[in-house]
Amino acid sequence: MSLCFLLSCRAGILLAFVMAVVVSATPSAAASAAEPAAVRTLRHVVLFKFKDSSTPADVARIVEAFRGLPQRIPVIKGFEWGTNVSPEGKAEGFTHCFFVSFATEADRDAYLPHPAHKEFVGIVGPHVDKVCVVDYWTQP
Amino acid sequence: MSLCFLLSCRAGILLAFVMAVVVSATPSAAASAAEPAAVRTLRHVVLFKFKDSSTPADVARIVEAFRGLPQRIPVIKGFEWGTNVSPEGKAEGFTHCFFVSFATEADRDAYLPHPAHKEFVGIVGPHVDKVCVVDYWTQP
Repeated sequence: MSLCFLLSCRAGILLAFVMAVVVSATPSAAASAAEPAAVRTLRHVVLFKFKDSSTPADVARIVEAFRGLPQRIPVIKGFEWGTNVSPEGKAEGFTHCFFVSFATEADRDAYLPHPAHKEFVGIVGPHVDKVCVVDYWTQP
Repeated sequence: MSLCFLLSCRAGILLAFVMAVVVSATPSAAASAAEPAAVRTLRHVVLFKFKDSSTPADVARIVEAFRGLPQRIPVIKGFEWGTNVSPEGKAEGFTHCFFVSFATEADRDAYLPHPAHKEFVGIVGPHVDKVCVVDYWTQP
């Protein structure tokens, strides 16, 4: 029975390891229910209205420059963007929204003066008619 | 050896099942890399600046009313909110951001005239100094 014992021991250890991986990879159910999420995220919402004199090529170049920041600034935890499609007519002229996420205030504070971000500000600056920036910690 | 065979068979089946659960719970790596995300989301970003005459209790009541909408309007796919903590001074007076997600334009179009949303608009309306609403389809 020693082979049998060894086999079941090995399978048992492997099973325990796999189950530990599953448990560690599964988001806590408690965190998504009544309890506030344990991990909050710092959102950085940037709205742009570009100048009438800015061409579609200028705007495309700005979008690509912003889209390139996550690869150049590792503290960026999340990034998405899009153009306004609201039917409500309350966009105040803003046409573009960039939605950047950080894990900590220190990360956001490192992003703002980062050379790559400063370079982006130099690219977008001449084309900005209006900008609005709101940061918030996620709450459910 | 038949007990041994049974033991290792049972462990093997359990292990296969657990590994299938792990694989099915792991997000596709392909979807988050160079390929555009297969599932795009319609974001609905709402910024508020409340009147100076609105009290903290008024604002708290508005926040709770908005927070109650996901339970009353099933087409809301995601909801979070927060108050501005940007150090940049470019928030244009906006203090509150509500970030609502929908799966489809039809869902957003069902949300806007929904009685529960209309009721919320009636609650917030008298307190709004400025509002800005931008909707966008998520792009990476």
